[in-house]
Amino acid sequence: MDRVFLVGVGLTKIGRFFEKHAKDLFAEALWRAIDDAGGLKPRAIVVGNMTSSVLMGQDSLGALVADYAGLRGIPAFKVEAACGSGGAALYAAYALVKSGVVDVVAAGGVEKLTEANTEYVTRALAQAADADFEVFYGATFTGLNAMVARLYKSLFGYSDEDLSYWPLKMHEYASFNPYAQLPRKTTMKEILESPLIADPIRLYHAAPIGDGAAVVILVKGEDKAREVAKATGRDVLVELSSVAMATDSVDLASRNDLLTMESTVVATRDAMQRAGVEQRNIDYVELHDAFHVTGFVALEDLGFAPKGMGAKLFKEGKFQRGDKPEVNFSGGLKARGHPVGATGIYQAAEAAMQLRGDFPGYKASSPETALTHNIGGISTIAIVSVFKRVR
Amino acid sequence: MDRVFLVGVGLTKIGRFFEKHAKDLFAEALWRAIDDAGGLKPRAIVVGNMTSSVLMGQDSLGALVADYAGLRGIPAFKVEAACGSGGAALYAAYALVKSGVVDVVAAGGVEKLTEANTEYVTRALAQAADADFEVFYGATFTGLNAMVARLYKSLFGYSDEDLSYWPLKMHEYASFNPYAQLPRKTTMKEILESPLIADPIRLYHAAPIGDGAAVVILVKGEDKAREVAKATGRDVLVELSSVAMATDSVDLASRNDLLTMESTVVATRDAMQRAGVEQRNIDYVELHDAFHVTGFVALEDLGFAPKGMGAKLFKEGKFQRGDKPEVNFSGGLKARGHPVGATGIYQAAEAAMQLRGDFPGYKASSPETALTHNIGGISTIAIVSVFKRVR
Repeated sequence: MDRVFLVGVGLTKIGRFFEKHAKDLFAEALWRAIDDAGGLKPRAIVVGNMTSSVLMGQDSLGALVADYAGLRGIPAFKVEAACGSGGAALYAAYALVKSGVVDVVAAGGVEKLTEANTEYVTRALAQAADADFEVFYGATFTGLNAMVARLYKSLFGYSDEDLSYWPLKMHEYASFNPYAQLPRKTTMKEILESPLIADPIRLYHAAPIGDGAAVVILVKGEDKAREVAKATGRDVLVELSSVAMATDSVDLASRNDLLTMESTVVATRDAMQRAGVEQRNIDYVELHDAFHVTGFVALEDLGFAPKGMGAKLFKEGKFQRGDKPEVNFSGGLKARGHPVGATGIYQAAEAAMQLRGDFPGYKASSPETALTHNIGGISTIAIVSVFKRVR
Repeated sequence: MDRVFLVGVGLTKIGRFFEKHAKDLFAEALWRAIDDAGGLKPRAIVVGNMTSSVLMGQDSLGALVADYAGLRGIPAFKVEAACGSGGAALYAAYALVKSGVVDVVAAGGVEKLTEANTEYVTRALAQAADADFEVFYGATFTGLNAMVARLYKSLFGYSDEDLSYWPLKMHEYASFNPYAQLPRKTTMKEILESPLIADPIRLYHAAPIGDGAAVVILVKGEDKAREVAKATGRDVLVELSSVAMATDSVDLASRNDLLTMESTVVATRDAMQRAGVEQRNIDYVELHDAFHVTGFVALEDLGFAPKGMGAKLFKEGKFQRGDKPEVNFSGGLKARGHPVGATGIYQAAEAAMQLRGDFPGYKASSPETALTHNIGGISTIAIVSVFKRVR
């Protein structure tokens, strides 16, 4: 089968942009990606987004962002899979390129959350959960994750401080990332004294609400990728070796185990099999840490830590620079930020830049193989992708 | 490249189903499609839907319908392109199969519109238009189409009666269709005396609001398609030869010509080129007639009538049984119904059944090649597909 290469990345800083529409943000990211790909314009756009229908009253988002970015006419559609929308857009774009239906595709994501009041945003984000069996009874998305965090703590004997090493480290990483929403270090005291949102989750344990857009440009075949590399003066290619997706029930009550994200397990196995790699081959990881506990459970379900050991190993210094894999040097959802439908594409762009060696933040130790992990809901959907550096 | 075949279709009747959730409707259509494909279960689902986020408060729709239908775990995501969501789902599913990323994919669509009050539904459907430049100023989707109808009438000298031959005929066709929402004949008098919605569009000039779901199952390669045909005792295969997509501005004011749906023109050219056919090769068409005028403009932009002549030719009896192409024997959006995100898949299923010769309604004259045309907004997005009968 034909191989797919990632030849351009474009990111906006994540933040509160009252002066920018989602289409402004998307155009900014798209044209940065086009520049990064030596001027190569996509012939189709797949845009991941969760909340435009509810918060902006806008459907037809694909055509809207294509037109506004100056690319009126090309195939363009929106993919929705809650917080996994970006990953799902990458999955669809990968198939479009690999099939030969389109030869150059922009996989993007955009989210504009800060313009609505917090109550609306909380409600909009809760739509990742089951409307009839969870939200109807008052559940919020943080509330549901708090149940997971409680169980993780009690079952494996962790304190709030144990789990707080995650945000502590993520803030440190983000302090180097020019695109991060929270590019500043924090302290254990600040984390543990931050307001309680849903016991035991405190403000600093959760990803922030933010606006942002990200785009990666995919092409088919090594020849085309070499051509772009030459035009941009790069000596490495980034292959998108596989994108795998799996799902689970939306409502948590139907799960077999609250502390195992089964769709993450399945998608990881599938992605690795398709890419011909195993856990031991993965040098760098960007994983989906919407909350501290999500980061630990993800480490476990991706196969990098035994069940229940994620927080312990992380606290002991695993997954940091020099270890294998190195994890979330972007700062993660926690501190890089989580513009929901764009997050999966931020991860892909960050992984690609780490492989190319030009990530403008906290640098990985020259990774050859990277993996990204994006989920919607509490892994109601998981999209796992494997990227390889090709010389 | 590998060829894609459509091996199963499943439809629900379109109507008002207060007792059924969208996931019930989808499961019904999905399992009918699986039965129709001799029990072949899809390994991924792409679901087209426009309004679940707004009217049901539910995102993560892909995982939800997969789980509820008993297929928990498989890749599943939602595609949104307003009224073109079904066509866009077909486009993504086609690429997934053709690329080999998944070998058996269900392309589906579902919409549940009747549970919300009419004002909410009108607002939800207006989200196909530009939120900032159109809806903000009070435009409704019918209002925007009324401008098109006015211009079409005045520029080409048509009366309301001239345009009303469309719904008259569509109701006749639908009266034979067991899945149709409005399976009954009407009269010119009834049409012309129906309430005015947005001058000159009357109630009977517009597609109804309804609930429904549709699924088609796609597989890769002729061998697999032959295997299913054998298991189901069919002697013909249906090849999905091409699916093409194009977009336009969302807001109408940015268009070059209000009476040319440019994305339809472009997608038609592309779909025909990819399938190696021309207009003269097309025997059967299911096109997107959200309003009477949309049907006529579509006939023109698909290349089956000169500009401005669609209504005249239709009134004179063109596009009816025995002509080439035969058009909308399902009853079209007008009378079969228009469960928005499912419509593009209803069309694909109807085209396939006409090619197989087992459409349980008004039958085409043994077509060899069929085309479907699904749009979102006023052709803000267009998805055109070509299907071939293979013996």
